[in-house]
Amino acid sequence: MAEKASGIDSLDEFLNVAVDVAKKAGELNSNLIAYFVWFCLNQVIRKAFYQTKHVEHKGSVDLVTETDKSCEDLIFNHLKQHFPSHKFIGEETTAANGVTQLTDEPTWIVDPLDGTTNFVHGFPFVCVSIGLTIRKVPTVGVVYNPIMDELFTAIDGKGAFLNGNPIKVSSQSELVTSLLATEQAGTKRDKATLDATTNRINSLLYKVRSIRMGGSCALGLCGVACGRIDLFYELGFGGPWDVAAGAVIVKEAGGLIFDPSGNDFDITAQRIAASNPQVKDAFVEALQQSA
Amino acid sequence: MAEKASGIDSLDEFLNVAVDVAKKAGELNSNLIAYFVWFCLNQVIRKAFYQTKHVEHKGSVDLVTETDKSCEDLIFNHLKQHFPSHKFIGEETTAANGVTQLTDEPTWIVDPLDGTTNFVHGFPFVCVSIGLTIRKVPTVGVVYNPIMDELFTAIDGKGAFLNGNPIKVSSQSELVTSLLATEQAGTKRDKATLDATTNRINSLLYKVRSIRMGGSCALGLCGVACGRIDLFYELGFGGPWDVAAGAVIVKEAGGLIFDPSGNDFDITAQRIAASNPQVKDAFVEALQQSA
Repeated sequence: MAEKASGIDSLDEFLNVAVDVAKKAGELNSNLIAYFVWFCLNQVIRKAFYQTKHVEHKGSVDLVTETDKSCEDLIFNHLKQHFPSHKFIGEETTAANGVTQLTDEPTWIVDPLDGTTNFVHGFPFVCVSIGLTIRKVPTVGVVYNPIMDELFTAIDGKGAFLNGNPIKVSSQSELVTSLLATEQAGTKRDKATLDATTNRINSLLYKVRSIRMGGSCALGLCGVACGRIDLFYELGFGGPWDVAAGAVIVKEAGGLIFDPSGNDFDITAQRIAASNPQVKDAFVEALQQSA
Repeated sequence: MAEKASGIDSLDEFLNVAVDVAKKAGELNSNLIAYFVWFCLNQVIRKAFYQTKHVEHKGSVDLVTETDKSCEDLIFNHLKQHFPSHKFIGEETTAANGVTQLTDEPTWIVDPLDGTTNFVHGFPFVCVSIGLTIRKVPTVGVVYNPIMDELFTAIDGKGAFLNGNPIKVSSQSELVTSLLATEQAGTKRDKATLDATTNRINSLLYKVRSIRMGGSCALGLCGVACGRIDLFYELGFGGPWDVAAGAVIVKEAGGLIFDPSGNDFDITAQRIAASNPQVKDAFVEALQQSA
């Protein structure tokens, strides 16, 4: 389907441009992280840093740094130069200008810095996530973690790769030996959301080997794609930019992307689950019992 | 105190030997991980792997691989060669021969592979942890993550380092901007333990910025030491080998190690909390309210 829309060569070009720009944004991130860690070591300078820096609040305990915006500008400028007719949806642009409707047109969906809290604290799970949808289907995906120098890439129908090497989902077939990754309720901290989150974790903890929380939705999906993690779900994440790239990477690694209810994945619904095909039914059943 | 027991030169020598052997064990781990990931990609070989491999069960959903044992043998042989009069406590030796009483003698306390579940799944938070206690006080600490090539080291009174660069705990003074790391209840999955664990997480989620679960107690402590994480606690971990090295690394990075109740840390109690000095009281209060 994607091939018909754009030709297979175009998809390759799309990926190459996305990889280039992800790496460029990643370099920017790495420099800024080194800069930030240095700041943190010196409280006086750190205070000045916070005073001079314009930090907006996404929620009561979330952060947006200038970095997010610089990276998004850099990525969009680069992509627009190459693909002037394409559409663009970004986390920061959406925050500033409101929601852009996703259409059937080729659309680049970008999170310039997934794992903002990790970034601010220097925790190594941060990434640039760049996905391309065609007819609303995730078709090209690039996720780059500049701290660990891990580049996940995929094109619809052409496999998924980590730093150029093919990756596959795990072959786990039982929940009891599965490693589950999830996130707590991001920026929403009302009682109902937190209770639902911890009740779900409580219920799932009886059934799986262990739980990890890494703080990046895109890297959680890539963890499933390369078999480090067997099960992943997240409810209430920021928007399609958290999952557009990861979704095609998981699918091309042989995995499945679905709604935690077991229904079809909807890229606009802020609900996602991922696993290999063998363990999916048991995972959906466990998620339903935990709801 | 440590200096009086052994002389400051000895402590340096102790550290150097521990670093050498941690790196040696780390290489072994890295090779085995590459080996294991390759196995996972091929289900047929993987079955054979599980059939021919002697896997013991620590708990219902935990694993001990041969790797643990090879690494512990390697580390103990190396250390015994250099320090024949010292005592030794290791996770695997304890599992095989029962608990060795911790005395005032210089004692090497070793976890050859912390993050066993991560190791089996290829999740990058695994490490070798080598601590030396003198008069029961953690005095030398080495934690090496061979996947991320991060070497944390500390000697009592001489500072803490990451790959040779000095590290310090964060300067967070408020819970609401703090990143908390913890683990779910390791190998214990009875209802009372799991309910207590998730109730604690539920209560703390209202108060902190976000929660991470990385699956390695020693790396959680090192995360506090280098300021990636502001708060860490774990209850019911395996034994002193999970914390002996991390405890001195946190202290030498300017942090505090204490019992989650706020009482003094007891290395044999399987309970630990860590933070910087500014946020400790608020953290203890939050932990008490969550109990």
